[in-house]
Amino acid sequence: MAKIALAVHGGAGTILRSLMTPELEAEYRGGLEDGLRAGWDMLQRGGSSLDAVEAAVVSLEDFPLFNAGRGSVFTHEGKNEMDAAIMDGHMLDAGSVAFVKNVKNPIKLARLVMEKTEHILLAGNGANEFAREMAVEFADDAYFFTEHRYEQLLKAREEGVVQLDHMADEIELLEAAVGSNINPESQIRTPKPIGTVGAVACDVNGRLAAATSTGGMTNKKFGRVGDTPIIGSGNYADPVCAVSCTGHGEYFMRGVTAYDVAARMKYKDLSLEDAARETIEHLTAIQGEGGLIAVDSKGNVTLPFNCEGMYRGWVAEGGVMGTAIYREGN
Amino acid sequence: MAKIALAVHGGAGTILRSLMTPELEAEYRGGLEDGLRAGWDMLQRGGSSLDAVEAAVVSLEDFPLFNAGRGSVFTHEGKNEMDAAIMDGHMLDAGSVAFVKNVKNPIKLARLVMEKTEHILLAGNGANEFAREMAVEFADDAYFFTEHRYEQLLKAREEGVVQLDHMADEIELLEAAVGSNINPESQIRTPKPIGTVGAVACDVNGRLAAATSTGGMTNKKFGRVGDTPIIGSGNYADPVCAVSCTGHGEYFMRGVTAYDVAARMKYKDLSLEDAARETIEHLTAIQGEGGLIAVDSKGNVTLPFNCEGMYRGWVAEGGVMGTAIYREGN
Repeated sequence: MAKIALAVHGGAGTILRSLMTPELEAEYRGGLEDGLRAGWDMLQRGGSSLDAVEAAVVSLEDFPLFNAGRGSVFTHEGKNEMDAAIMDGHMLDAGSVAFVKNVKNPIKLARLVMEKTEHILLAGNGANEFAREMAVEFADDAYFFTEHRYEQLLKAREEGVVQLDHMADEIELLEAAVGSNINPESQIRTPKPIGTVGAVACDVNGRLAAATSTGGMTNKKFGRVGDTPIIGSGNYADPVCAVSCTGHGEYFMRGVTAYDVAARMKYKDLSLEDAARETIEHLTAIQGEGGLIAVDSKGNVTLPFNCEGMYRGWVAEGGVMGTAIYREGN
Repeated sequence: MAKIALAVHGGAGTILRSLMTPELEAEYRGGLEDGLRAGWDMLQRGGSSLDAVEAAVVSLEDFPLFNAGRGSVFTHEGKNEMDAAIMDGHMLDAGSVAFVKNVKNPIKLARLVMEKTEHILLAGNGANEFAREMAVEFADDAYFFTEHRYEQLLKAREEGVVQLDHMADEIELLEAAVGSNINPESQIRTPKPIGTVGAVACDVNGRLAAATSTGGMTNKKFGRVGDTPIIGSGNYADPVCAVSCTGHGEYFMRGVTAYDVAARMKYKDLSLEDAARETIEHLTAIQGEGGLIAVDSKGNVTLPFNCEGMYRGWVAEGGVMGTAIYREGN
């Protein structure tokens, strides 16, 4: 029996301590822990890594502060368009979706693409048509963002969690904190499109899987597809390792970042940690910003990034959950 | 000064000699030679590999017998939806488009994505909107397929090139020959979605580029995106090598095939030929069918495939063009 292992992330980027409160930080850590718990329960019961990463990402999609599922950002047209990908390392099979709308859990739809079609990536109207044909759970626009985030802001104000003078500042705070953008009129813009969630797992049979989901890029135009639904760029799993990325997508596409970790392990015979470190060094060299989580078939986990912070969580020996946000490992 | 080099392909798959006539074969070879000539002229004048692969692919897109640009197949809804990608190995920059309609040369649009946006992949309505904003050349539906192909069939019949009894048989012949599907009522189906064109080049400065374009998959549904517009899967270039793939796209996505050639060169220190051979062996191992063309910065070229044939061309020492269709290298 292999050593089971699990890691999750909730996005990477400019996460400033100065803009964070203890209460908000506790919220984020709670979201990561919920994701870990969902996946870990699955792995402990002998479930597959595929089921574990799906369960973890469903939990992270449902958590409103990460840019995926419920917390997805708005496109230029004021819509939520979501991307997701899942890959089964054992079977080397994959499914992904791009531009899905009103699908409660895009990661579940990605898995259906993998299991119910001969294709890997479905996009746009066709992907939404497939979602209807599969009768997945839909949610209305209100579920996805505005109502909820504003309610949460008002609640936070009432409870004294966020002590600011007016809504605009609250929005700026939340923008800076979660890497998204609520109000198009706000003066402060999120510098990079870096909100994503993901999970990687090794199950009791040493089989690996990776899942990644995103609400996309704030204010994006022209049907931009980022790295998340691209097998090899934002998400990848094979018998050697499983990887989920978060960051400025275009650089992960150029670097073929997720697969690059596997390639360095297979072809240079590097450890998971060394391979992932080199991949992130290459990302830095091409001026890309972000991070990744990865697991190998021995249950090793690594979570490197090259920016100020990455919302991340893992389960250590004995089932103890750990979470961290900033660079210093806490 | 580096040794300039160029290779092109017009798709791979089941290409049966028994269904080919000398006249039709000459047509295909002529199409490949036109593509080679367009790219080679550019390279000989000291032009960049990027300009050369674009020029070659524009020529291949304009050639009506390959499944790209003018010769694109029909989707389930009876539409032509085209994908294309281009990558500049020197700058590690890329652009690609998916689901573009009525764009005369999708490869030109992919280059505009690379040069005029901060994104890499634009898809669907957004990509078409971008095409209009860039004022690229559009063509009406008739240009893309039906009128032309039928006219060509009639002309071939008049000239005695295709000696068959009725239109249905001509359609079957052309289907089998070019890996596409004209008539949805026809009894013979193309077994695999394998029509693509591509070019790779090394210029006088030893800089590499790759370009790939496809009319997609006959009868495809649900907004399926194949490997062609996916950087790392169907198209890739860096300072080490440039690769353009053709075949059953989903396997090239699982195998991250185009980047895998580069990874084997960089991390295993293999030659271009050995790396590409190993990548195709891996493709065979995961039951994928197709081939690729690749070039390195020393001007070496390789064109491996694992199926019955691949329409391919290259320029040998002294500027002599070579073309081949079948396995035996001719």
